Amino acid sequence: MRYKQLFGKTLREVPQDVHVRSRELLLRAGYVRPLGHGLYSFLPLGFRVVRNICRIIREEMEMLGGQEVALPIVNPYEIWKKSGRTDLLDRDLVRFRDREGRELVLAPTHEEAMVELVRVAVHSYRELPVFLFQFQNKFRDEERTRAGLVRTKEFMMKDAYSFHRNYTDLNNFFPKVFGAYERIFARCGVEIITAESGVGYMAGEKAYEFLMPAQIGDSVVISCPRCGYRANREVAKGNKRKNGDEAASAGAIERTPTPECRTIEDVASFLNVEKSRVGKSLVYKLASGFVMAVVRGDYEVSTEKLSRVVRQPVVGLAEESDLVELDLLPGYLSPVGLTGRLPVIVDDIAAASPNLVFGANEAEMHFLNVNLGRDYDCEAVADIAQIRADDTCVQCGAALEEILSIELGNIFKLGDYYSRAMNLTFQEESGEKVFPHMGSYGIGIGRLIASVVEANNDKDGIIWPAELAPYRGYLMGIGKSLSITKQVDEIYAAAANDILLDDRDESAGVKFRDADLLGVPLRIVVSPKHLPNVEIRERRSGEVRIVPVEAIPDELKRVAAEGIAHAI
Amino acid sequence: MRYKQLFGKTLREVPQDVHVRSRELLLRAGYVRPLGHGLYSFLPLGFRVVRNICRIIREEMEMLGGQEVALPIVNPYEIWKKSGRTDLLDRDLVRFRDREGRELVLAPTHEEAMVELVRVAVHSYRELPVFLFQFQNKFRDEERTRAGLVRTKEFMMKDAYSFHRNYTDLNNFFPKVFGAYERIFARCGVEIITAESGVGYMAGEKAYEFLMPAQIGDSVVISCPRCGYRANREVAKGNKRKNGDEAASAGAIERTPTPECRTIEDVASFLNVEKSRVGKSLVYKLASGFVMAVVRGDYEVSTEKLSRVVRQPVVGLAEESDLVELDLLPGYLSPVGLTGRLPVIVDDIAAASPNLVFGANEAEMHFLNVNLGRDYDCEAVADIAQIRADDTCVQCGAALEEILSIELGNIFKLGDYYSRAMNLTFQEESGEKVFPHMGSYGIGIGRLIASVVEANNDKDGIIWPAELAPYRGYLMGIGKSLSITKQVDEIYAAAANDILLDDRDESAGVKFRDADLLGVPLRIVVSPKHLPNVEIRERRSGEVRIVPVEAIPDELKRVAAEGIAHAI
Repeated sequence: MRYKQLFGKTLREVPQDVHVRSRELLLRAGYVRPLGHGLYSFLPLGFRVVRNICRIIREEMEMLGGQEVALPIVNPYEIWKKSGRTDLLDRDLVRFRDREGRELVLAPTHEEAMVELVRVAVHSYRELPVFLFQFQNKFRDEERTRAGLVRTKEFMMKDAYSFHRNYTDLNNFFPKVFGAYERIFARCGVEIITAESGVGYMAGEKAYEFLMPAQIGDSVVISCPRCGYRANREVAKGNKRKNGDEAASAGAIERTPTPECRTIEDVASFLNVEKSRVGKSLVYKLASGFVMAVVRGDYEVSTEKLSRVVRQPVVGLAEESDLVELDLLPGYLSPVGLTGRLPVIVDDIAAASPNLVFGANEAEMHFLNVNLGRDYDCEAVADIAQIRADDTCVQCGAALEEILSIELGNIFKLGDYYSRAMNLTFQEESGEKVFPHMGSYGIGIGRLIASVVEANNDKDGIIWPAELAPYRGYLMGIGKSLSITKQVDEIYAAAANDILLDDRDESAGVKFRDADLLGVPLRIVVSPKHLPNVEIRERRSGEVRIVPVEAIPDELKRVAAEGIAHAI
Repeated sequence: MRYKQLFGKTLREVPQDVHVRSRELLLRAGYVRPLGHGLYSFLPLGFRVVRNICRIIREEMEMLGGQEVALPIVNPYEIWKKSGRTDLLDRDLVRFRDREGRELVLAPTHEEAMVELVRVAVHSYRELPVFLFQFQNKFRDEERTRAGLVRTKEFMMKDAYSFHRNYTDLNNFFPKVFGAYERIFARCGVEIITAESGVGYMAGEKAYEFLMPAQIGDSVVISCPRCGYRANREVAKGNKRKNGDEAASAGAIERTPTPECRTIEDVASFLNVEKSRVGKSLVYKLASGFVMAVVRGDYEVSTEKLSRVVRQPVVGLAEESDLVELDLLPGYLSPVGLTGRLPVIVDDIAAASPNLVFGANEAEMHFLNVNLGRDYDCEAVADIAQIRADDTCVQCGAALEEILSIELGNIFKLGDYYSRAMNLTFQEESGEKVFPHMGSYGIGIGRLIASVVEANNDKDGIIWPAELAPYRGYLMGIGKSLSITKQVDEIYAAAANDILLDDRDESAGVKFRDADLLGVPLRIVVSPKHLPNVEIRERRSGEVRIVPVEAIPDELKRVAAEGIAHAI
């Protein structure tokens, strides 16, 4: 490609309102452009990176027997009703009717549609396992779009789905995908950590995330620096901090005025106690009704843990209007005096902490010395709070850390949740009708590109891993003599598909800067100084070598092969 | 690929409710499956065909300097308001709001989004022309979905857009895309005709369609068998049939009862006259208001021609409620007595036909002997009727024919319609701010696949053109002796990427039938009879040859090259 013809040039000025390095570089170098809030277009250079990533993923999926398909983005709403996920996705899910009145959705993920596809194609155990994947734009009406390509509303995704005869087969297949994901991210030049995670609206049994640690990330991983334990904050286990008075005897319960105190902070400050001495009560909406979760004021509720205890997905916090209907006073929620009206689940450390302060379900009033068993009752005591940094590891006792990360991929052991809900069966060897077990595996392409750039840049610009770069070589001549242009044209003609030729009438300095900004692995300079040799500079190391012209095709090939070698 | 592992097997039984050969074959052979009304999934075999077609199109687009991009499917509604197309697309356009209340659309085409992309990337004449393309699923809430992949609601499309310094440059580029389209369809094994067509909601100036003649098609091309004139019925010119009494003097206008007559047929039959003696009045909605179109009862209004006369797009027929508001009586519309209330456009042959019958804008009453000029007035007399078979060619006078066709692609000279409407300018050499001229070019991938199958099949199944086939070879052994399986495995190992190996424990007959149904170009049979040679059968010609095993890679390459050679 000749630079003059390239659509989407580098920008001299940094776009305003850019605080994320990958966003700044991808915009400045002409890889992407925003079209609207949470909507990005890929320019030709950016789309070449997309295709390179898709090729890598495709290779790794096909190595596991994956077969590529293409399902519609628009799904009938009725298949979503069958799976029962419509409540969970709620506002993330875009719904509309076609002109004949059929209810449709923009599918944010394709478990349901895949089940329908497998239903018409698989009937016998002989046809399992099945491993299908696709590349597709999805739209999720995310609450928080942020950090450029890190979280957008529309995004390109590789989604894959496996179907197995039984749980054992799924279990055996799972580590293979795990390995493929590790290779994919290695080939893309990002160092990842893995962590157990919540299943969220995916339902199913177990989930793991592949994350890249980054300050701009919005996933929090709890990690043990000593033994290596790691899990997403939503599911992480840990030893919570004790208040030290666990053995204290229960004081007399007491109503006390707390004027203008609506938050835990207000109450703790007004009563001059630690937050850990205040109880926090929150009411959540479930498909079946409502539940109150009680944690200590220095902890947050994990909806993922809560949903495991109540054995159903948590839809979200109850609305104020729900609370009013339940005869509860927002800001002064209390488990005291609630008996029978609402199930209560109490976090284990809250249950073990005596004499807590709780709301009185009355404006500007709290109770002192509230004790579980004596002053209120509950359905269950369980671990429902998010572990925090400085809590200690359940495995080795070391203090845990929080790692801010970008979630790049996830894999879900769905078990037979979907096949049961949607009544998908196959015939076993015995003749029996059996529900297949399912796995689901996603990678966000745009987010991966942003993360690659976050992990691979310097002050001058992007440093693409070789397999991902839009071109392997950035070619330019210095001076306009016939011998220079002839040599440049010859090099270009031999590898036009893999070289970006900077044919502008700009100074060498401008071209050097743009070459660095674009992040192409090899900068090839033809100058009178070195003819008949040329200068090659490696973008990553800055190493400069003088090589004969004839060596260039091999240099380009060597660079291209590096990424693959790196991952094996 | 081993057949046992292939997801999506051939079906023994023809799915019910299948009247279209391509739909039947694509379903039976396991290429596609419906997910919902107007929604299809591509199975692995089908997706390989999709990728082959995309590769061909990509090659041809890149030959013209096309650069591939990827724009979001979801667009901000505001860019559609800028172009003014929201009224035109009306019910085809799916609109929704995101959780923050932003208005969004599922873009059925991307002129607006491309204008926005070019706005942020092109500022000077030096950066033009620009030719961008993408492959993307679109959703159009079509009124009639039909014939399997021929007309679906969601469909995969190659859409391309060019931007030029001026009209001349657009004009010079246009024939290049025309040529590329001809090559694409030739490589895909479909014989196409081209025809001028209407611009519809695309606005702009001129449009051409690439169509494949087919009984299942729903596009009507008017064609002159003598001189080769061809155009879509919406825009075709022709000499309309005269009634023979053009010179007759005007009779006295007369009100006459026409009980229970609401259609042209009713009136003609009740009054015992030809339909060509009855005037037909229709009211259409425009962006600016309403217009009445008057044609003779034996012709239909062309909204495309009408919109050219009124110099604005026709949104559609007025609703009954609109008519009531205009004080008109549905079923008895009349231009008589309308003066000043509504502009009237009269088709030229209706204007030239004296003494027509017209509605009286009164229930069950018509006028006899209505004459333009004396009994009603109009804004313009123009050609606004669709030409019919047996009308004669304006060029050579021969009787015209109607050709039913499937529209496979279209190209639009949009001129500066969008750049003006959306205020997209670039700086000319002179320093002047100038509106670029635009072209838009589409190909529907699913519809193309259906058409390829319509044009390439026999009683036994599909006959894929070599470049499109999911695999070049269909390999099978006869018998289970070690020498056979060893030979089969060796052939497969040497070209596993391009061979479908039928490894089932089925009879040779079953395998032969499936090979024919799937339509792979070469069937390769390893049998004791011919070892160490193998039998190769060409799917298209039925020709059988005995060749040495070593020749197979070359045979596969030869077949793959054929499609390309065919098109050059």
